[in-house]
Amino acid sequence: MKHLAKALNLSTATISKALSDSYDISEETKRRVIKLAEELRYIPNAHASSLRGKKSKTIAMVIPEVADSYFAQAINGVEAIAQAAGFHVLIYLTHEQLIKEKAILKELLNGRIDGLLISVTRQSEEASHINELIRTGIPVVFFDRVFENIGKGEITTDDYHASYLLTEHLIDQGCHNIDFLLFSNALSITKKRLEGYQQALVDNGLKFNANNVLRCTNIDQENEQLIKKKLGGKNKPDGIIASVEKLITCTYRACEAEHISIPDAIKIAAFSNLPTASILQPPITTITQPAFEMGKMAAALLIKAVKGKPFDIEEAKIIIPSILEIRKSTSTTG
Amino acid sequence: MKHLAKALNLSTATISKALSDSYDISEETKRRVIKLAEELRYIPNAHASSLRGKKSKTIAMVIPEVADSYFAQAINGVEAIAQAAGFHVLIYLTHEQLIKEKAILKELLNGRIDGLLISVTRQSEEASHINELIRTGIPVVFFDRVFENIGKGEITTDDYHASYLLTEHLIDQGCHNIDFLLFSNALSITKKRLEGYQQALVDNGLKFNANNVLRCTNIDQENEQLIKKKLGGKNKPDGIIASVEKLITCTYRACEAEHISIPDAIKIAAFSNLPTASILQPPITTITQPAFEMGKMAAALLIKAVKGKPFDIEEAKIIIPSILEIRKSTSTTG
Repeated sequence: MKHLAKALNLSTATISKALSDSYDISEETKRRVIKLAEELRYIPNAHASSLRGKKSKTIAMVIPEVADSYFAQAINGVEAIAQAAGFHVLIYLTHEQLIKEKAILKELLNGRIDGLLISVTRQSEEASHINELIRTGIPVVFFDRVFENIGKGEITTDDYHASYLLTEHLIDQGCHNIDFLLFSNALSITKKRLEGYQQALVDNGLKFNANNVLRCTNIDQENEQLIKKKLGGKNKPDGIIASVEKLITCTYRACEAEHISIPDAIKIAAFSNLPTASILQPPITTITQPAFEMGKMAAALLIKAVKGKPFDIEEAKIIIPSILEIRKSTSTTG
Repeated sequence: MKHLAKALNLSTATISKALSDSYDISEETKRRVIKLAEELRYIPNAHASSLRGKKSKTIAMVIPEVADSYFAQAINGVEAIAQAAGFHVLIYLTHEQLIKEKAILKELLNGRIDGLLISVTRQSEEASHINELIRTGIPVVFFDRVFENIGKGEITTDDYHASYLLTEHLIDQGCHNIDFLLFSNALSITKKRLEGYQQALVDNGLKFNANNVLRCTNIDQENEQLIKKKLGGKNKPDGIIASVEKLITCTYRACEAEHISIPDAIKIAAFSNLPTASILQPPITTITQPAFEMGKMAAALLIKAVKGKPFDIEEAKIIIPSILEIRKSTSTTG
């Protein structure tokens, strides 16, 4: 406070009044004080959030994409809670690019929002840009793809356990050589899904083989080629787990192109909330995430934080279970 | 201007300066002037948009939902253009409810946004709430589901022609009794799709029968029942057109439940941008809409309008063609 007063050649009383949005202080002075205070990350949280609260009643939702059933359903959940509480929801898409995530968060430092919901990109390995926002007093709640222990809350599902269950289901159905498709193993949820898969193999007397992990790209055709090559090669899999919904179509197409019948010659399962899961050729066994619920919980927690209601970070670590939905793609009686 | 000056006991020069955001005028006075001007819908467009421009650099996108491939892809298009132009995108979901659409637009009267992109709900039959926003000087661009001649632009696809093509394709494949599934025939695009279907029937020597039009609800199970009843009844269809992506899953499930094989006993086609269209059981023939392109065009047009660049409303009526993608669900060789 003293530092601000000196830098702006104002009294500390004026600074204090400006920060509490007092009518005694001109708008121009308030702007100068807030600007410098934000630059110096100097605003006490209560003031910052009350000032922001008056300005915006808006929360931002920063997500990798929207053309994905999980995120689409999560948005609906967030939006249901926000609308009921009179909050606006700004949606920003990172398209899985860390550089976009950083640019968006920088832009959000301007006080446009009261709080942030975020599910990080596949490229996000460190949280400095998120910490910068948090330091200005904006509460952040993570959902699905989280950095642990830096936000006001973390809403996740049981990725490790769900992946373990799914892998064990494939083993129970007779698979011995299961490929695991992923985009990036930097991502916390991918790591957990991979760990669940590995542990289920080991617990069922199978060895983990790094050749079973297929790293996919953003280009469908490339992924289809990659899977086709694996299906036509020496070490043919008898099961495939797609750890991401986007990888289902290229997996099915690769099997079709190689004339490998699902589920007779290979069993396929995926993490997915696809509404069409039950009408695929064949219907696909999935781990279905509680997307709508996760969106609702994340929004409720964030709004609580924005309103300054106290809660313990430990209470705010919420894990909502996913569901294993068994369909024909993993059946033993094709 | 004079009216404002009188009501606020200020000179018209002050009003003018306040409306052009002059530094000569105190923030307090500006607020009073803008508030009353907005209440009286009195702001000349150029002033209003320049004031708003300074405040927000934000556009709103009001759409029925996000858990739909068309809208998800359209958002990506809007967002690509907006991000490149330095604009923020607020996304609001109406969940197909006119009452929500009205509440959102009322909320947007507060000057939070520079412009609006809208695709109206199934219930929207008149545009008074949209006209109210337009009167405050906020440019509105419609996409996909439009009210004609009231916005700054209309980005649509050729729903009539696409539906005609799709219906003729089914007739060419041997269908004589084609059901048409829809949600609401109040919607402009549904009307056009229905008209295209009717005209294709007539032009190919078939009679239009109102019993072939099935009105669906928001509840999947109800729709599945409705279709099952039709499939098990006297007037069995040999073809079904789902005019909405959401109706595909219930149509396929109803056929499966009634043991009616697609495409041998019935042919199915839909308006849909589903990424899984090619791996359904069987792959489904679709009219694929240029969703991403439509989003991009709509955003570009709106940003042009926000920046006050002139263009003719006739130039701004853009129709981007949809594509007929023929797949196994309408094949004659099951």
